[in-house]
Amino acid sequence: MNRLEVTEKIISTKVSKGIKWDAVAKKVGLSKEWVTAACLGQMTLDAEQAKIVGKIFGLTVEEQKWLQVVPYKGSLPTPVPTDPLIYRWYEIVSVYGTTIKELIHEEFGDGIMSAIDFSMDIVREADPKGDRVNVVLSGKFLPYKQY
Amino acid sequence: MNRLEVTEKIISTKVSKGIKWDAVAKKVGLSKEWVTAACLGQMTLDAEQAKIVGKIFGLTVEEQKWLQVVPYKGSLPTPVPTDPLIYRWYEIVSVYGTTIKELIHEEFGDGIMSAIDFSMDIVREADPKGDRVNVVLSGKFLPYKQY
Amino acid sequence: MNRLEVTEKIISTKVSKGIKWDAVAKKVGLSKEWVTAACLGQMTLDAEQAKIVGKIFGLTVEEQKWLQVVPYKGSLPTPVPTDPLIYRWYEIVSVYGTTIKELIHEEFGDGIMSAIDFSMDIVREADPKGDRVNVVLSGKFLPYKQY
Amino acid sequence: MNRLEVTEKIISTKVSKGIKWDAVAKKVGLSKEWVTAACLGQMTLDAEQAKIVGKIFGLTVEEQKWLQVVPYKGSLPTPVPTDPLIYRWYEIVSVYGTTIKELIHEEFGDGIMSAIDFSMDIVREADPKGDRVNVVLSGKFLPYKQY
Amino acid sequence: MNRLEVTEKIISTKVSKGIKWDAVAKKVGLSKEWVTAACLGQMTLDAEQAKIVGKIFGLTVEEQKWLQVVPYKGSLPTPVPTDPLIYRWYEIVSVYGTTIKELIHEEFGDGIMSAIDFSMDIVREADPKGDRVNVVLSGKFLPYKQY
Amino acid sequence: MNRLEVTEKIISTKVSKGIKWDAVAKKVGLSKEWVTAACLGQMTLDAEQAKIVGKIFGLTVEEQKWLQVVPYKGSLPTPVPTDPLIYRWYEIVSVYGTTIKELIHEEFGDGIMSAIDFSMDIVREADPKGDRVNVVLSGKFLPYKQY
Amino acid sequence: MNRLEVTEKIISTKVSKGIKWDAVAKKVGLSKEWVTAACLGQMTLDAEQAKIVGKIFGLTVEEQKWLQVVPYKGSLPTPVPTDPLIYRWYEIVSVYGTTIKELIHEEFGDGIMSAIDFSMDIVREADPKGDRVNVVLSGKFLPYKQY
Amino acid sequence: MNRLEVTEKIISTKVSKGIKWDAVAKKVGLSKEWVTAACLGQMTLDAEQAKIVGKIFGLTVEEQKWLQVVPYKGSLPTPVPTDPLIYRWYEIVSVYGTTIKELIHEEFGDGIMSAIDFSMDIVREADPKGDRVNVVLSGKFLPYKQY
Amino acid sequence: MNRLEVTEKIISTKVSKGIKWDAVAKKVGLSKEWVTAACLGQMTLDAEQAKIVGKIFGLTVEEQKWLQVVPYKGSLPTPVPTDPLIYRWYEIVSVYGTTIKELIHEEFGDGIMSAIDFSMDIVREADPKGDRVNVVLSGKFLPYKQY
Amino acid sequence: MNRLEVTEKIISTKVSKGIKWDAVAKKVGLSKEWVTAACLGQMTLDAEQAKIVGKIFGLTVEEQKWLQVVPYKGSLPTPVPTDPLIYRWYEIVSVYGTTIKELIHEEFGDGIMSAIDFSMDIVREADPKGDRVNVVLSGKFLPYKQY
Repeated sequence: MNRLEVTEKIISTKVSKGIKWDAVAKKVGLSKEWVTAACLGQMTLDAEQAKIVGKIFGLTVEEQKWLQVVPYKGSLPTPVPTDPLIYRWYEIVSVYGTTIKELIHEEFGDGIMSAIDFSMDIVREADPKGDRVNVVLSGKFLPYKQY
Repeated sequence: MNRLEVTEKIISTKVSKGIKWDAVAKKVGLSKEWVTAACLGQMTLDAEQAKIVGKIFGLTVEEQKWLQVVPYKGSLPTPVPTDPLIYRWYEIVSVYGTTIKELIHEEFGDGIMSAIDFSMDIVREADPKGDRVNVVLSGKFLPYKQY
Repeated sequence: MNRLEVTEKIISTKVSKGIKWDAVAKKVGLSKEWVTAACLGQMTLDAEQAKIVGKIFGLTVEEQKWLQVVPYKGSLPTPVPTDPLIYRWYEIVSVYGTTIKELIHEEFGDGIMSAIDFSMDIVREADPKGDRVNVVLSGKFLPYKQY
Repeated sequence: MNRLEVTEKIISTKVSKGIKWDAVAKKVGLSKEWVTAACLGQMTLDAEQAKIVGKIFGLTVEEQKWLQVVPYKGSLPTPVPTDPLIYRWYEIVSVYGTTIKELIHEEFGDGIMSAIDFSMDIVREADPKGDRVNVVLSGKFLPYKQY
Repeated sequence: MNRLEVTEKIISTKVSKGIKWDAVAKKVGLSKEWVTAACLGQMTLDAEQAKIVGKIFGLTVEEQKWLQVVPYKGSLPTPVPTDPLIYRWYEIVSVYGTTIKELIHEEFGDGIMSAIDFSMDIVREADPKGDRVNVVLSGKFLPYKQY
Repeated sequence: MNRLEVTEKIISTKVSKGIKWDAVAKKVGLSKEWVTAACLGQMTLDAEQAKIVGKIFGLTVEEQKWLQVVPYKGSLPTPVPTDPLIYRWYEIVSVYGTTIKELIHEEFGDGIMSAIDFSMDIVREADPKGDRVNVVLSGKFLPYKQY
Repeated sequence: MNRLEVTEKIISTKVSKGIKWDAVAKKVGLSKEWVTAACLGQMTLDAEQAKIVGKIFGLTVEEQKWLQVVPYKGSLPTPVPTDPLIYRWYEIVSVYGTTIKELIHEEFGDGIMSAIDFSMDIVREADPKGDRVNVVLSGKFLPYKQY
Repeated sequence: MNRLEVTEKIISTKVSKGIKWDAVAKKVGLSKEWVTAACLGQMTLDAEQAKIVGKIFGLTVEEQKWLQVVPYKGSLPTPVPTDPLIYRWYEIVSVYGTTIKELIHEEFGDGIMSAIDFSMDIVREADPKGDRVNVVLSGKFLPYKQY
Repeated sequence: MNRLEVTEKIISTKVSKGIKWDAVAKKVGLSKEWVTAACLGQMTLDAEQAKIVGKIFGLTVEEQKWLQVVPYKGSLPTPVPTDPLIYRWYEIVSVYGTTIKELIHEEFGDGIMSAIDFSMDIVREADPKGDRVNVVLSGKFLPYKQY
Repeated sequence: MNRLEVTEKIISTKVSKGIKWDAVAKKVGLSKEWVTAACLGQMTLDAEQAKIVGKIFGLTVEEQKWLQVVPYKGSLPTPVPTDPLIYRWYEIVSVYGTTIKELIHEEFGDGIMSAIDFSMDIVREADPKGDRVNVVLSGKFLPYKQY
C-alpha cells in the first residue's frame, strides 16, 4: 500500500458518495484549501484528523496511518500542466513571474514569499458581468540572510 | 529593433536612475502590477501610456511604438523557473494545482478562472512574527459551454 | 475506478458494438464535436446526458457518475503528438502560430480567442480534386483588461 | 544574411511605419493569412510577390531573393508555446486532438487532413455577448494508401 | 481491450509459432512493408484483411475488429529512438535532413514529400563486399498552395 | 572562424548568385546528395574538392581548409524537426520504425543498416496523378558479431 | 548592461589579476561562500559591499549598482549539470534525496530545510588517506502550517 | 521480484508498524543516513546486515538476498524534483553550484569531491529563533590526474 | 510474453540462485561481456545458446524462443543515466567526447568507430594504490564513403 | 574573455596552421588524450604547460591564464549527442550500460570506476578485414564506503 492508493480511494469514494470538500473541511475544522490538499496527498494529517477523514471516506486503520506520513509532494503529471484550469495558473506564473519578482523585491528586498508558511483562500465574488474567482495567497516573507 | 531590446533598455535605465515601479505606475495611473508587467514586455500600452513610460525611461518615438505592439508573452527562460522566488509560485501550482481545480469546480462547475480578465494585487501585511506577502488574484470564471 | 477507465470502456464498447459518434451525439442532442470530446474524457456531462450515454455504452450508475465529474483534461500522451492526423494540427499551430497571433491582434487588439467559450464544427466539403475537411473554430474574443 | 534577418526587418519596419497585414495582402492579391505567414518567414514568394513586398518594407534586391527561398518552417520558440493566444490553439489540439481524429476517421476513414493543401480564414463575427473570432480551416483529406 | 493488446498478441504469437512477416503479407496480398506496419499497430485493415490476419494469429472476432479501427500512430517509445537499427534512420534524418530539404525544393519547389500517399520497399542487394539493405521510399510531392 | 560560418557563407552566396546544388555536384564530380550534404556542413571534402567548391562560392583559402575538417554532424536545430518536409521523414521513422526493424532482421538477422557506408539518391518520378519523390537509400548491412 | 555582464567582468578580472575569493570575502567581511555567490550573480550586495567589490574588480559606478539589484538566480546552464564537480552534488540529491527527506521528517515532522535562511561552510579536512572536503549546510527548519 | 518491490515492502511495513529509521540504524550498527539510504534501495547490505533488516521488516530469505544486490541507483522520479523538501536541495545546487565549484578548486585545484567515498550527517541544532537542520557532507577530494 | 519479462526472470533467478555471469559465459563459450548483454536483453542468441542459458535459468521453451528474437535495444531508463557507475561512463562521453572525435579523425579521417562490429573486455588491474577497472573497447573503423 | 573563446581560438588556429594534436602532446610531454581534452577546454594546465600550448597556438599571456583555470566541463551541445562518431559511444553506454554495471559489481562489489582517476588510450589496430580503433579505459575502482 502507498499514499497514492489512499488518495485514489478517497477520490473514488467522493465520486460515488457525492461528498463535498467543503463538508470534509468543516468536519476536520480547518480551511477547505488545506484539507482538500491533504486529501489529495499533498499535506500530512495528525492522528485525530486522519480518523475524521477516515470515517468520512471509509478508510481502514492502515490507510489512516498513511495520511499521517509526510507524502512525496507534487500533484501534477507533467512539468507544464495540460489541464486548462491549472494551466491558467501556470500561465500567470509565466506571464507575471518577473513582475511578481520585481514588486516583492521592491517592497521587501532580496528574499522569497514562503510556500510553506503559506495559506490560500478561494472565494466566489459576485459580479454582474459574470462572477469571479478570488484567491488570496498569503506567504511569509523570508529574507536572504548574509553570513 | 524588437520589444526585448526596449524591455532591456527600460530595466537598464531603471537600475542606473533608481526608478521605482510604484512611481511609474502612479504616473501611468494604473496598478503597479499591470504597469510593471507592461514595462517587462508582457502587456500592451496605448499611445498615451507609452508616451508617459517613454518619458520616464528616455525612450525614442520608435521605442514607444514597440510598447504599443502586442508582445509575444511569457517572461521566463525555462519551463520550470530556477529563480527561488518565482519557483515558489511554480511550487504552489505544483502542490496545490489539483486542490485549486477541485475547489473551483466544486463552487462553479466545469470551466476556468480567466488569466485574461484578471487582476493581481500584491501588498505587504504587517505581522509580528514576520511580515507577509499577500497577493489577491481575481479572475472571471468562464464556464465551458456546451454546443 | 477513475475517469480514464470509463473512457476506455466507452471506446472498447464502441469498437465491439460498432457505435458511431454521430449517433451518440444525436441521442444526446448536442454537436458530435462536444459529445465525442465528452465521451473521450475531456468534457463534463450533466446527469441526464450521462444517463443517455450510459445507456448507449452499458455503463453502471457509478460509471455514469464519473461522467459528471470535471476531468483532468488533455487527451494526448506526448507534448508533440506522434499521430500523423493530430500532428498536422500541431504543425498548423507551429507554422501559422505567429500569423494567427498577428491577425487576431490586428483585428481585435491585445487579448485571446477563447478555448472555453468555444465551439468547433467539422464537415466534409465535396471537391472534384478530392474532398476536403472543413473545420470552423469559433471562440469568443477576450480582451486583456487594464487595471 | 538569412531569412530570419529579413523577417525581423519586415516586422521592425511594420512597427515603425504602422503597416497593416491586411493592406500588404491586398497589394499582393492573396489572402491576409497566407501573405502574413509568408512575411513571417513561413511561406515562399515568387519574384513578383517578393518585389511587391520588398517595396512595401523597403527590402533590397538580395533581401527579396531570400523571400523566394523555401524557409525552414516552424514559427515558435518552444514546443509548448508560452504566448497565451497561441497557447489556446495548442490547448485546442491537446483537449480536442483525439476528438478531431475520431470524427475525421468516422467520416473519411484512415488518412489525414492536409496541412499543405490547406487554407485558413480568420474573421470577426459580431455577437451581442461579445464578438467572436471565427476561423475556417480547410484541408484536403489524404487517405492512407495500401500497397 | 485496445489495439496495443492486439499488437502484443500478434507479436507474441509470431514468436511462439515462428511466423514470417513475408508469409503474412503474401496471404493478405499486399506488400510486406504495409502488412507488417498494420500488424504492428500502425495501419488500418479492412474486414477481409483482418479476417486473414486473425486466422494466422488466432485472433478473436473482437480482436479482428480492433484491426479495423484507425490506430493512434507512432511506434517508438522515445522521441530519439535508442535501438541501434532504428537510430541509424533517425541519424539519416539528422545528418541529411537539410540536404533532403534542399534537393526536393530545388527539383519541385516549396512543398513536401507525402508520408501518407507513400510506399516503401525494402530489399537485399547482394554485394561481394557485404550485402546491402536497399530501401526505396516513394512519396507523392504535395506543393504548398497559395490562397 | 568555424565550419558553421563557412556553411552560412555558402548558403548566402547560393541565394544571392542563384547557384544550383546540381550544378555544384557536377563540377565536383560526385552525387548531388553527398555534395549538398558536404556544403551544408555534414561531410568532409578533400583538398581538390574544397578548391572547386571554394571557387564556386568565393571562399578564401582558410574557409576551404574548414571544408576539409571533419565537422560536428547533425543538421537540425531540434530533436523533433519542426519543418514540415523534414518532419515527414521523422514521421516515417516514427510510424514505420518498428516495421523497418522487423523486416531487416527477418531478412538479415541481428545487425543494422549502416548510415556510414551509405548512399542516397533522390529522383523525380513522373506520375499522371501527381509527380512523386523517389528516394533510394542504400546501406551496407552490418551484423552484430559475437565474441 | 545587465547583471550577467557584470558577473563576466568580475570573473574575467579575477583570472587576469589572479584574485582569490577568500581575499575578496575578507575585505567584504563576510563568509567566502556568500561573497563568492554574490560575485557570481546569485546574491544581492548593499551599497557599501558593492563599493568594496567594485574597487577590487575595477567596476564602474553603474556596474556597482547592478550588484545591488536582486538577480534572477540559478547558476547552471542545464537542469542536470554536466560539470563533474557540480554533478556529484546533483548525484547526492538524486541518490540521497529520499533519505534526507525521511530523516528530516522523522526528526522535525512535515516541513522543509530552508534554502533562504541558510548558510554553507566549505572546509578542508586533513586526512592521511587523502584530504577531504567538508561542507556544513545549515538551514532553518520551516514547518508546514495548517490553516 | 526486484529491489523496488523490496523497498516498497520495507516502506509499507515501516508505516504500519511505526518503525523509526533511527532504531533500524542502531540495530544495524551504522549511521542512520547510510542505513536509511540502503533501506530505500540505494546502498548494498552484506548478508548479516540484510538479516537484521529482514528481521525488522519481516522480509523473506529471497527478499534479503535482493538487499545484497547492488541496486540501480537514483531515488527521484523526475530530473528536477517536485517535492518541496528535496527541491530545496536541488535549489542549493542550482544557486550555489558555481560557488561550490570555485571554492573547492581554489582550495584543492582541479578535481571533485567524491560522492562515493562520502558520508553525510543530519542533526538538529537548537536555535531560539527556530531550530535548524544541520547537515555535514564529507567527501574525499579526488584530483584529476594528468597522464 | 515479451523479452522484458524473460530478462526479469533471468535477473530474478540469478539473485535467488546466486548465479555468476562469468559462469554463464563459460557455459555458453563466449565472453562474459557479450553473454551478459544478451541475458540482459540486448543481444540475440542462437538456438543452442538459448538452450544453454535456458537450462541455467530454468526458462521454458517459449522463453528460450524470445532469446532468439532480436530485441529492441537500449538498457537505460533515462537519456542521462542516474546510476553513479553508469553515469561515470556518460560523463566520459560528455567530457572526452570531442577529444575522442578529434583523435580518431586525426588517425583515420572521417568515419566512425563501429558499435556493431565491436567487442569489449573488462578486467581487474591490480594496483597498490587501489585496483583499477581496465576496459578495452575495440570497434572497426568505418570510413564515410563518398558517392 | 572566457575559456570558450580560448578553445575556439585554439581550434581555429589548428585548422589554419594544420597542427596535429599528436604533435602538441609530444611538446607538452603528456598523452595525446589528456592534452587534446585540455586544449578543447576540459582539463586544467599548469603554467608551464600553458606556456607551451600558448606558443604553439599563438595565445596571449591572458589567454594562457585561462588555460590554468579549472573549466566548466562537458563538451557536448546536447544531452544525446547528434554527431555519429560520438553517438556510437553514447550507444555503447545505452546498450552495454547495465552489462558494464553487472560485471564491475560482480568483480569488485558496490562502487564505481572513477572518471577522475582515469586515463584513456586510443590506438589503431591493423586488421586485414579493416583496421580497428582500440581504446583502453582505465579507472580506479572506488568502493562505496559504509559509515
